[in-house]
Amino acid sequence: MRRDVRILLLGEAQVGKTSLILSLVGEEFPEEVPPRAEEITIPADVTPEKVPTHIVDYSEAEQTDEELREEIHKANVVCVVYDVSEEATIEKIRTKWIPLVNGGTTQGPRVPIILVGNKSDLRSGSSMEAVLPIMSQFPEIETCVECSAKNLRNISELFYYAQKAVLHPTAPLYDPEAKQKSCFGHPLAPQALEDVKTVVCRNVAGGVREDRLT
Amino acid sequence: MRRDVRILLLGEAQVGKTSLILSLVGEEFPEEVPPRAEEITIPADVTPEKVPTHIVDYSEAEQTDEELREEIHKANVVCVVYDVSEEATIEKIRTKWIPLVNGGTTQGPRVPIILVGNKSDLRSGSSMEAVLPIMSQFPEIETCVECSAKNLRNISELFYYAQKAVLHPTAPLYDPEAKQKSCFGHPLAPQALEDVKTVVCRNVAGGVREDRLT
Repeated sequence: MRRDVRILLLGEAQVGKTSLILSLVGEEFPEEVPPRAEEITIPADVTPEKVPTHIVDYSEAEQTDEELREEIHKANVVCVVYDVSEEATIEKIRTKWIPLVNGGTTQGPRVPIILVGNKSDLRSGSSMEAVLPIMSQFPEIETCVECSAKNLRNISELFYYAQKAVLHPTAPLYDPEAKQKSCFGHPLAPQALEDVKTVVCRNVAGGVREDRLT
Repeated sequence: MRRDVRILLLGEAQVGKTSLILSLVGEEFPEEVPPRAEEITIPADVTPEKVPTHIVDYSEAEQTDEELREEIHKANVVCVVYDVSEEATIEKIRTKWIPLVNGGTTQGPRVPIILVGNKSDLRSGSSMEAVLPIMSQFPEIETCVECSAKNLRNISELFYYAQKAVLHPTAPLYDPEAKQKSCFGHPLAPQALEDVKTVVCRNVAGGVREDRLT
């Protein structure tokens, strides 16, 4: 079993990355928010999966590109945070953040990603319709969740989903060491595996979208 | 590939199973709620993969034990719904509903379960602390989600997580009593291995044959 889980929060400025971390730790919405939270280590016995968990904030104003790359490299899962009330922050998931996280790893295993819609208190409807096409496009997105650092909605769930993406991932990820992998007697070409995952994601997304689940 | 996804909602009376279904379909909280919703089929022809999704309600007052057993047998995933403001409905997850769903299947593959905390509008804190011990006890629980049929919070997400539990199941939790095997680096207990074999390979291999290529 894993020794620990390292969760990195990325996303546009002002989407509430730091507030999410401080809300989780303090169990209340922080009045004053620093530009970046200190790295926090949650001891194993208080985490859902009983594994020490590090939560790492990011601030474009405070960190260099090199520091960002290092943090991405060290992360076991990345939460890409957007603001459900600011569509521009959703568009940047696709154009900026996912390419940054996994753009250099066409051959290697991809870091799992969780899409996190913060500030759900500012919007009555769901942002799911907007993020489903992104989820179809990037199979490394494990799941999505809407939350509110302000009213503490889905904060524990968010960090639980992030831990789970590392400890209990869904589809088996492609192993760059092997030319081809066999799973339960079925040889699987990595690209085929990725294709299937994409196709099935698209199916779910399409079903959900067309049937107004969103 | 799967022919369809069948989602069954179970849980104590008055937790809001029917309201959740009607909120999903109607996109608003229903003023009048019948004892049980009709089975709803989200049609296949609008999804690229042609996977219809059936949503099935349950009413203890309206259905016999035999009908319940039949529905459990047909379900691909069961949402066990509880009321976040009524602790007794949480306790019944462990003592009644999970044994009912998977109690007779110590040897066979288990039906994946989602824990659904409804009426989140009635409680400010999270019920996650109360459900985590249950999740640790029953590895067939794929995930948990809190929602509100009343204010339409997390309704789309709930049905998305349920579909995902069928189409992209996680590797089930490790069973310390079982001899371990591993697939893609993830330790799998033999029963888990069977579950994954059944689900993942059927989907993936089928996907490769039928869909990768369309």
